[in-house]
Amino acid sequence: MVIFIIANKYLWLKMNKSLLKILDFIKEVDQLKNIFRRSYIKDGSRRENDAEHSWHICLMAVLLAETANQKVDVLKVLKMLLIHDLVEIETGDTFLYDKNRKNVFITEKAAAKKMFALLPSPFNKEMYDLWIEFEQRETAEAKFARALDRLQPIMLNYLSYGKTWLEANIKKDDVLKVNEIIADGSVELWKYAKDVIAESKEKGYLK
Amino acid sequence: MVIFIIANKYLWLKMNKSLLKILDFIKEVDQLKNIFRRSYIKDGSRRENDAEHSWHICLMAVLLAETANQKVDVLKVLKMLLIHDLVEIETGDTFLYDKNRKNVFITEKAAAKKMFALLPSPFNKEMYDLWIEFEQRETAEAKFARALDRLQPIMLNYLSYGKTWLEANIKKDDVLKVNEIIADGSVELWKYAKDVIAESKEKGYLK
Repeated sequence: MVIFIIANKYLWLKMNKSLLKILDFIKEVDQLKNIFRRSYIKDGSRRENDAEHSWHICLMAVLLAETANQKVDVLKVLKMLLIHDLVEIETGDTFLYDKNRKNVFITEKAAAKKMFALLPSPFNKEMYDLWIEFEQRETAEAKFARALDRLQPIMLNYLSYGKTWLEANIKKDDVLKVNEIIADGSVELWKYAKDVIAESKEKGYLK
Repeated sequence: MVIFIIANKYLWLKMNKSLLKILDFIKEVDQLKNIFRRSYIKDGSRRENDAEHSWHICLMAVLLAETANQKVDVLKVLKMLLIHDLVEIETGDTFLYDKNRKNVFITEKAAAKKMFALLPSPFNKEMYDLWIEFEQRETAEAKFARALDRLQPIMLNYLSYGKTWLEANIKKDDVLKVNEIIADGSVELWKYAKDVIAESKEKGYLK
């Protein structure tokens, strides 16, 4: 009986410790609200941050899931999108059109290992695995999640009159090349994206 | 055969029109990033906006679902949280401790009707129903979602040294009274919230 009580007490302490670890993680990741991206929000008044971007593409996932090439587990897509940029709290945002993007994965992977290790089991493994899956872009969920992550900045760039593209002297062909992976997640959304890119060129939002 | 082709063509046009409606909605709701709340982000540098807040509580839902009093459908909770503040694009944010909150539901309900009507079927009904469910706080999902929506600002207020509470001269008893609904969603999280509130009082972050 005594042993039973002690065991339970330790179980409670362990659970409690896990909960506090999760709550500490939640406080820690508030910093994502200060990681600013290249894209401007729709009205062009300021750059968008990673937390807002993550919310926006999660809502897109819910409303656009039917456009995915393969049937997707929406909950899994949402989990991926909620955590996909957390590593940037450590590494900062890397512009999609930067020439030096090849080392980004290595740096971000190290950051992901460190960051998700802050979580208790089983979330440490689950979140790290989801982050890797998103990056590797092999599953239906990862392909679709990555498509949304690429489509949203195209929409924002169009809406803010190509501010980011013009500032960085981005060409239409660069945008097409860098974003064609959208088609792997959704042929339908890639068709739409190409229309937006073509219209952006016509309107002078893109060189 | 001709009829079949025509029918298919119209079906395609209808689907395409639905997709464009969804994409227009996604552009429209970018405005949520400009709806600022009373709470400050963790570092106290600026107020938090509704889009960031929505992302933050979605992540909380994924990591804290096990603490809900009743088993919850996490995907449903996430959908609710992603859209719960969209009405504020029209109505603006109402401070939780305002004395005049009783008409808020009527105004927000009208805004919800208008806003979700922008979506094609079946999303117009689904999103409106989810919004109502969240507000009514009767299902397990709604109770838990509302608990997270209340817990997050308590955490942020604590982290920003009670800036919002002190500015608005909020008392400890107000915070306890207004937020006790957290217990309906999660007794465990309410226990944690009460600890944070007590510590805030001790540290002078709260009158």
